[in-house]
Amino acid sequence: MGNPVLVELLRGDLVESRHTGAVAVVDADGGRVLALGDIERPIYPRSAIKAFQALPLVESGAADLYGLGPEELALACASHSGEPGHVATATRMLSLAGLDAGALKCGAHWPIHQPSAHALAREGGMASAFHNNCSGKHAGFLCVACAMSADRAHYIEPAHPVQRLVKSTLEDLTGAVLSEDVCAIDGCSVPTWAMPLAALAQGFARFGAGAGLAPDRARAAARLREACAAHPWHVAGTGRFCTEIMSRFGKRVFVKTGAESVYCAALPEQGLGIAVKCDDGAGRAAEVTMAAILARFLPLNADLVALEPFVRPTLRNWNGLTVGGLRPSDGLTA
Amino acid sequence: MGNPVLVELLRGDLVESRHTGAVAVVDADGGRVLALGDIERPIYPRSAIKAFQALPLVESGAADLYGLGPEELALACASHSGEPGHVATATRMLSLAGLDAGALKCGAHWPIHQPSAHALAREGGMASAFHNNCSGKHAGFLCVACAMSADRAHYIEPAHPVQRLVKSTLEDLTGAVLSEDVCAIDGCSVPTWAMPLAALAQGFARFGAGAGLAPDRARAAARLREACAAHPWHVAGTGRFCTEIMSRFGKRVFVKTGAESVYCAALPEQGLGIAVKCDDGAGRAAEVTMAAILARFLPLNADLVALEPFVRPTLRNWNGLTVGGLRPSDGLTA
Repeated sequence: MGNPVLVELLRGDLVESRHTGAVAVVDADGGRVLALGDIERPIYPRSAIKAFQALPLVESGAADLYGLGPEELALACASHSGEPGHVATATRMLSLAGLDAGALKCGAHWPIHQPSAHALAREGGMASAFHNNCSGKHAGFLCVACAMSADRAHYIEPAHPVQRLVKSTLEDLTGAVLSEDVCAIDGCSVPTWAMPLAALAQGFARFGAGAGLAPDRARAAARLREACAAHPWHVAGTGRFCTEIMSRFGKRVFVKTGAESVYCAALPEQGLGIAVKCDDGAGRAAEVTMAAILARFLPLNADLVALEPFVRPTLRNWNGLTVGGLRPSDGLTA
Repeated sequence: MGNPVLVELLRGDLVESRHTGAVAVVDADGGRVLALGDIERPIYPRSAIKAFQALPLVESGAADLYGLGPEELALACASHSGEPGHVATATRMLSLAGLDAGALKCGAHWPIHQPSAHALAREGGMASAFHNNCSGKHAGFLCVACAMSADRAHYIEPAHPVQRLVKSTLEDLTGAVLSEDVCAIDGCSVPTWAMPLAALAQGFARFGAGAGLAPDRARAAARLREACAAHPWHVAGTGRFCTEIMSRFGKRVFVKTGAESVYCAALPEQGLGIAVKCDDGAGRAAEVTMAAILARFLPLNADLVALEPFVRPTLRNWNGLTVGGLRPSDGLTA
């Protein structure tokens, strides 16, 4: 019943903590290339599917109507760190659609990026909806609502045209049936629908390769992937895993984090989709798992060196002393 | 081989994440009252044993020599949040021993308490060693070093007289043999020695009841417990689990968190010690586990209501909407 150990944390010579979980690597037809653990159990994809949620922004014509560029499209796919450049881009998105901060329904939180949070406090600022890591996604939803001439006050609700569009897009990409009994509320208040990890991975294979998608959808997916590859800082932020990986690998890897230890990726050249969910929700474990899977499935040469700090990150304490590290389990690298 | 599920996280109707781990409830003679999972595997106790590390502060006479009161003793046992009152108490401890901030070797970090961190930034301040959650423990070590006329520059090293004293105290309380091959470096740079969870629990049973300890050590333990019961805010901080529990239960429960999902407690009236370690290192899981164990072993009546928000905490999102919650597994409450 239990999923296998994917990641171990070493302190000194002992394993101090361990993370179990599941990994699915699947092609666009659902063919399974790797299955570790239970990949049929429904999981909430959380923010890992923000790029899927952003497809209506392109497909509806809203992105062109409001003149959104690749930075804005990348931010629509982002869980950003609330750095000043992220806030500026979210502000621009809303203003292009004739809206302001009051339209955002994601809730306020302080920037994830600690130096930005401290700088904000130093300036006498406060947490706002713009700093919410989901503000780009929400700005995108609002652009779609405006372009559709739909109500702008309830765009986060499951019955709203924007969320219905998102839901049918998710079903098309993943092949999963998203019924109400697997619908929960995400951190930013939009619906999150549970689906099997295998279906999620298949969605990413299709998103990456375009295979199995209608031509317009495949083109919209390619446009979003290109925007993220060109502007990886807008998808996450300074020092973050998604940004670091996409900065190194460009269009070869689309990768996106979600809350509670979800991580997804598309490898367009290989035609593969990857979905990871660690049982306990730890982001550190999902990152090491994803790095190890990328090292296994990308045709790496010199690039392997670039991945190593993510596959086996070092742990340092407050004095900068090396106290241990994280490593993938033998089962993950075998 | 795998430990049982102790805590589940629900979002909507589904279990989104799950935490496995081990629990030992033991009396002062090592008699096992409850054993869930592998309680013989060595684990690093981390900050859960700060009260044990503070025993030399009392036993050496340093606390009396420098006139430390119960607030200072509570801070010596603390993983505090770096709020202004914590910083003031750590500053006072050092100054009573004729020292200043330069003596602390714990490293600097921003206050754990976010409003205090933002207030510090607003005032143009910076992270310092005083804000480090371990600054009270380190100030205590320095008081011992001064009272022993020992070197003050290397008090964090395993070979230093203060750390040797700490090690022999740990061995006496827990009955564990702490050899070099189970010694690692803690977040604040002092040694952390791995020991079986059962031994850790036995140490807390002895610390709480005094049974099995020399009279001077039992008195020192009682003095530290009384200091923490009287000043629980100094042991952690605003809204923190240790503070909330000890505020509610006073001398009936001594409880202390450690990094990587360690949680320990003493129930003096029952003569029991409790040690929890969740496999993945998640603090949220250790807290729910500890709350559920307290609910099981304390003779509760009306008090049960006070524990319930900790046994089954509600999860809210950035808009304050209830999106799910944590709950102990059936195996934990049975």
